[in-house]
Amino acid sequence: MIQFEHRPGLLDLGWGHPRPGLLPVEEWATATAAAAREFGWRQLTYGYPTGPAPLLEWLSARLGTEAGQLFVTGGASHGMALVASLLAGPDDVILVDSPTYHLAFRILADTGARLVRAPADADGVDPDALAGMLAALRAPGKLLYLVPTFANPTGRSLPLDRRRALVALAQRSGLTLLEDDNYRELSYDGEAPPSLWDLSGGEGVVRVGTFSKTVAPGLRLGWVNAAPTLIARLTELGYVESGGGVNHAVATTMSCFGASGAYDRHVAAVRAEYREQRDALVAAVRPHLPVAAPAGGWFLWVTLPPGLGATRLLAAAERHGTSFVPGPRFYLDGPGGEDRIRLSFSHLAASDLTEAATRLGAALPTAWG
Amino acid sequence: MIQFEHRPGLLDLGWGHPRPGLLPVEEWATATAAAAREFGWRQLTYGYPTGPAPLLEWLSARLGTEAGQLFVTGGASHGMALVASLLAGPDDVILVDSPTYHLAFRILADTGARLVRAPADADGVDPDALAGMLAALRAPGKLLYLVPTFANPTGRSLPLDRRRALVALAQRSGLTLLEDDNYRELSYDGEAPPSLWDLSGGEGVVRVGTFSKTVAPGLRLGWVNAAPTLIARLTELGYVESGGGVNHAVATTMSCFGASGAYDRHVAAVRAEYREQRDALVAAVRPHLPVAAPAGGWFLWVTLPPGLGATRLLAAAERHGTSFVPGPRFYLDGPGGEDRIRLSFSHLAASDLTEAATRLGAALPTAWG
Repeated sequence: MIQFEHRPGLLDLGWGHPRPGLLPVEEWATATAAAAREFGWRQLTYGYPTGPAPLLEWLSARLGTEAGQLFVTGGASHGMALVASLLAGPDDVILVDSPTYHLAFRILADTGARLVRAPADADGVDPDALAGMLAALRAPGKLLYLVPTFANPTGRSLPLDRRRALVALAQRSGLTLLEDDNYRELSYDGEAPPSLWDLSGGEGVVRVGTFSKTVAPGLRLGWVNAAPTLIARLTELGYVESGGGVNHAVATTMSCFGASGAYDRHVAAVRAEYREQRDALVAAVRPHLPVAAPAGGWFLWVTLPPGLGATRLLAAAERHGTSFVPGPRFYLDGPGGEDRIRLSFSHLAASDLTEAATRLGAALPTAWG
Repeated sequence: MIQFEHRPGLLDLGWGHPRPGLLPVEEWATATAAAAREFGWRQLTYGYPTGPAPLLEWLSARLGTEAGQLFVTGGASHGMALVASLLAGPDDVILVDSPTYHLAFRILADTGARLVRAPADADGVDPDALAGMLAALRAPGKLLYLVPTFANPTGRSLPLDRRRALVALAQRSGLTLLEDDNYRELSYDGEAPPSLWDLSGGEGVVRVGTFSKTVAPGLRLGWVNAAPTLIARLTELGYVESGGGVNHAVATTMSCFGASGAYDRHVAAVRAEYREQRDALVAAVRPHLPVAAPAGGWFLWVTLPPGLGATRLLAAAERHGTSFVPGPRFYLDGPGGEDRIRLSFSHLAASDLTEAATRLGAALPTAWG
């Protein structure tokens, strides 16, 4: 019925899913009933192509953007697929950060474009090296995909000077930055850095966002932030013209969830819970492996000691009752990442995270072979 | 907020939307509460790629198909867009019935394929002529789109011998029949004819279906019926792999709506209502224009008297307080249909339909100019 598969005996740090106990079952049911009362049949008929006005108004106020720069999607990955299909095709190149969200590779590759690793170092994409690469590409570089804020898998955020330089590069070169901004609300140590979208003034950047991390992924609800010309192209897609708003009933319910204050309350609550989970996992991993606490998001990105490989460690970890995603998964077409592992602290409660880290620690000595 | 725009003073026969009073606001709220109780957090997390098992089980039993031949979509037009993107591209030809659902043209054209009118007569697509056309095409003919049952705009159903012949042609030529089966449940005078899908044994046909006509379009919920190999390709789409089931929360609610018997009760109720609306519009149009009652669906397809054009009549009708969709809209790249108009009986109650037809009758003499 669901994507998650429980593997008996395993406390799995591989899943970048919300903790089940943090999903707002009661609060969402309340919003659903409120939406039925408030909107009646208007919630059940064909919706407006860019999304229902009550959600666009609430969301644009929250994001500090114009309602005309928003298009409601069936989740961030749906937004990425739509935008990529409009901006890139088989004769083009799409650049991707490394490491980055591995499931984005296939979404982008579905356009038929060729995927190429953008030059990156420990701070993220390097704007100067990227400018050089763009000039040398034989096919047009149409998009650069990155998660600049509380990234998957690194938890890191791109430094402000690189953000500004990337936006400037995009605006002078015609490259579009596809900013995956899914983790912005999950900031644990103060303000999140400004988005590329906000720095750009709406030119050269398309931002995708989601309610999957903040509310619930099963809703399949997200949005695209883009210039009005691209928003218009999204609404002109045949299937949007035919079906109207792509997730109308859920979107109207979310407008009630937002307007009632439930969204703010829920995000504050899950932020505190995920901060506690982060702290628990960091504290429990530290005796075994060097690890820095990310300022937001869902992931620890851990460097393995020299000579210890992620693939080998995975097998040992699973024998000890835990698991994770090995580093190479996050690098387009390898090589890279064999010295890294991604540990998710989103899906398990603090006590389980502690136990999982203990098991990982016990697996370590056995993984040297 | 919604796609429908009310034009003051107009009783509009143009909209192929459900009548607002027939949308199951209360019943859907009940199903939503039941789903929250039954599935809890499992309704709110990432869903299974082909759709949640409870819906697949109910739906496959209802359709008499295997669960492995189903993929849950965000509506029929979403299903068409996904299937067309997998089966056709810029170097291919997609054939379309004429007349047919006009918004399908853009969905199919979004693949980059060239759209070509399939040979058709008053009974629908002509299999023999189609075989000849396929042989003469320079690019591969990958798909044939048609609404064989209670069609939009004609209300007609393809005769059984043509159904069999088309399926046989598809199976020997490699053409895939894209069967839009959206109106099957809205059968007013007995059983609907067998679907192309059922006649095919699952080979050479992809069927798209929807809950938009039977329950509510704002849910954006439908399905694809296809061979397991194509279902697998749908689940391997990058954004499906990333986001899981494309409309998980709504799909789980629909499984409760189905299992509780609410679906059957609601469809029986709306079938009776739409039958009454059909009869009211047919009776009120008949004094003015020759019209046959369709056995199902939402539309009357009316032939105008010689010398009276649809475009001219539209202007006259709007001056008299009614409207409709002129015939040419349903023919790919014209010409055709100037002697036809589509009157929808789905959106207005019987008394309004009668008044709209009276206004159309009053407009007729003025449209001769």
